[in-house]
Amino acid sequence: MNSTAQDPWLLTPGPLTTSMATKEAMLHDWGSRDATFIETNQRVRDNLLKIAEAEGCHVCVPVQGSGTFAVEATIGTLLPRGGKALVLINGAYGKRMVKIIEYLGRTCTTLETPEDTPPSLEDLEETLSNDPHITHVLVVHCETTSGILNPIKAVADIVERHGRHLIIDAMSAFGAIALSAKDIRFDAVMASSNKCLEGVPGMGFSIIRQSVLEKCKGNAHSLSLDLHDQWVTMEETKQWRFTPPIHVIVAFDKAMEQFFEAGGVEGRFARYSNNRRVLVDGLREMGFETLLPDQLQAPIIVTIKMPADPAFDFQVFYDRLKDQGYIIYPGKLTVAPSFRIGCIGALDESHMNGALDVIRQTVADMGIKTGSPIAA
Amino acid sequence: MNSTAQDPWLLTPGPLTTSMATKEAMLHDWGSRDATFIETNQRVRDNLLKIAEAEGCHVCVPVQGSGTFAVEATIGTLLPRGGKALVLINGAYGKRMVKIIEYLGRTCTTLETPEDTPPSLEDLEETLSNDPHITHVLVVHCETTSGILNPIKAVADIVERHGRHLIIDAMSAFGAIALSAKDIRFDAVMASSNKCLEGVPGMGFSIIRQSVLEKCKGNAHSLSLDLHDQWVTMEETKQWRFTPPIHVIVAFDKAMEQFFEAGGVEGRFARYSNNRRVLVDGLREMGFETLLPDQLQAPIIVTIKMPADPAFDFQVFYDRLKDQGYIIYPGKLTVAPSFRIGCIGALDESHMNGALDVIRQTVADMGIKTGSPIAA
Repeated sequence: MNSTAQDPWLLTPGPLTTSMATKEAMLHDWGSRDATFIETNQRVRDNLLKIAEAEGCHVCVPVQGSGTFAVEATIGTLLPRGGKALVLINGAYGKRMVKIIEYLGRTCTTLETPEDTPPSLEDLEETLSNDPHITHVLVVHCETTSGILNPIKAVADIVERHGRHLIIDAMSAFGAIALSAKDIRFDAVMASSNKCLEGVPGMGFSIIRQSVLEKCKGNAHSLSLDLHDQWVTMEETKQWRFTPPIHVIVAFDKAMEQFFEAGGVEGRFARYSNNRRVLVDGLREMGFETLLPDQLQAPIIVTIKMPADPAFDFQVFYDRLKDQGYIIYPGKLTVAPSFRIGCIGALDESHMNGALDVIRQTVADMGIKTGSPIAA
Repeated sequence: MNSTAQDPWLLTPGPLTTSMATKEAMLHDWGSRDATFIETNQRVRDNLLKIAEAEGCHVCVPVQGSGTFAVEATIGTLLPRGGKALVLINGAYGKRMVKIIEYLGRTCTTLETPEDTPPSLEDLEETLSNDPHITHVLVVHCETTSGILNPIKAVADIVERHGRHLIIDAMSAFGAIALSAKDIRFDAVMASSNKCLEGVPGMGFSIIRQSVLEKCKGNAHSLSLDLHDQWVTMEETKQWRFTPPIHVIVAFDKAMEQFFEAGGVEGRFARYSNNRRVLVDGLREMGFETLLPDQLQAPIIVTIKMPADPAFDFQVFYDRLKDQGYIIYPGKLTVAPSFRIGCIGALDESHMNGALDVIRQTVADMGIKTGSPIAA
């Protein structure tokens, strides 16, 4: 029943292509009080801490829903009503954190750079020096808007030096790009089941410094998204407060088993980096231009500038690729017309080469001149 | 690969035993912008409206997470900051709605009856007459705390007569006990994928009167749980705002296909009612006493009074049943020691008889006198 063979390959920021073993783990029924499920849930939480090298100092609190639910739950639980957040923005996910804080009615300021530009460390330094009211700094590890890798270590060091709390949205990077609590001081890191750990969508999680979480009772704006209450109850009962997405969790456990077998963060980083190299080299060879210089490009998703040639109609291009089994992704940039191709999921070099072959043929069939992109 | 045969049967309030066809629907990967998935999502929403006979007047807004997420999202979106809720309580789920409203910082009053007693219609009438500030009445259709079926039609008629808004938590009854918008006037009904429609857990939904929802922009306390924003975006783009639990939704679609094939609400009510009859008759024959009289007992989950005989150790009883393939459920009552056995999920008379055989043998092996329950 190898139905993955018939499914198109997902070259997107997620949900991603997953292994058949991961999906087959869902072919059972479990009660939420079932001992096997409770063990599985504990193992998932333990393994997530292990991936962040955060055992001992942090705890892992899962939450139902998408990654945004985990981001909102973390902010709502950790940012007190009297706190003030500084959000570093260079894409849609930084902006989303601001939107969340606005919903919460809590105080927020921002530092924004263009989508192809990392946050300015000088401005961060200066802002923290000038505004002692800022209690929390929020940053996105890899902004999938552009695919840019933000300088998380440098940001964390500045925030630590100023004695503020750091919250990292590591959604699209967690498990593929090292983020160790031993190296980077953070209060919370959020991610979800369906990104680089290659599970199916339906749960997010937050890795939170225990000493911080212990003081967060009563902060949350929402019962469902109260991670303090979720954590306390889960520690006491080993169960979720409200019905867990059991099949998603069991699949996530199976996906993580494969993750460790394939060399953990190092193995995943190597495979995705190779995917990115093959993809970017092949696209450049065809004349496409990437948005980012190589040193800023995370091995997660590549933004390609839209060719100026009117023969390039993105929807036609997208549909032709899809018909041949490869799903790419539209652009989300405001700085320039673009599209995106992901290099994550249960895919390797052979899939990247397969995509390149199909792109090459499609470019030829459509008579596209790829040389000059639409100007920003 | 009929692994359900090896899984224990779940005689619980959910997550439930699901069919293998439902689980096998999850053996694929889809992008969230995928046309097949978008069609599936639309069909799920349309079918949920159809089940409630609410096409034309209401819309179906799904939300990631468990049923409680859907309850909180509905309350947060529909109850304005200046509104006042009256919650009818006769169990844990009524109390949970109060807790949600407290988190939201909105105004709330309650009418509480014991867990084995339906809400008093006289008190409801009087409370609404005396308090013109009450804008919304919140009630649970079937309280799984006890398994009691609340008189939803009578409540709805009173609320309508007083010109207030009605919100119904129909979590454990939706699809099995008729709740038609043609017959019962409601502003919102909430339920989830993993109850009587026999999907897997991971999404909830709310069926909301469109003319009401249209006026709810800006009410919500949470970005993730803002059903107005979720609805507007889904209507415009046909996509979820944030990553949907795709596998859960596709399984839900498959489960609903089977639901309609088996006669819809009528068919499900008939099968579950027969399950309950077989179960209750068999338990009474063994000397067990049910908490509720038959006319209050929904065909969802049966509460059984704990036998007073010290030979009855619930944990031992539970474990022995589990070892023989049947998972029952602990009690949640405050009025009396009890345990619960569900009659919902992809189960029929043969499973109920199987459970009864195992219970009969276990009672004999443990030397339990079932005759007199522990006094309340």
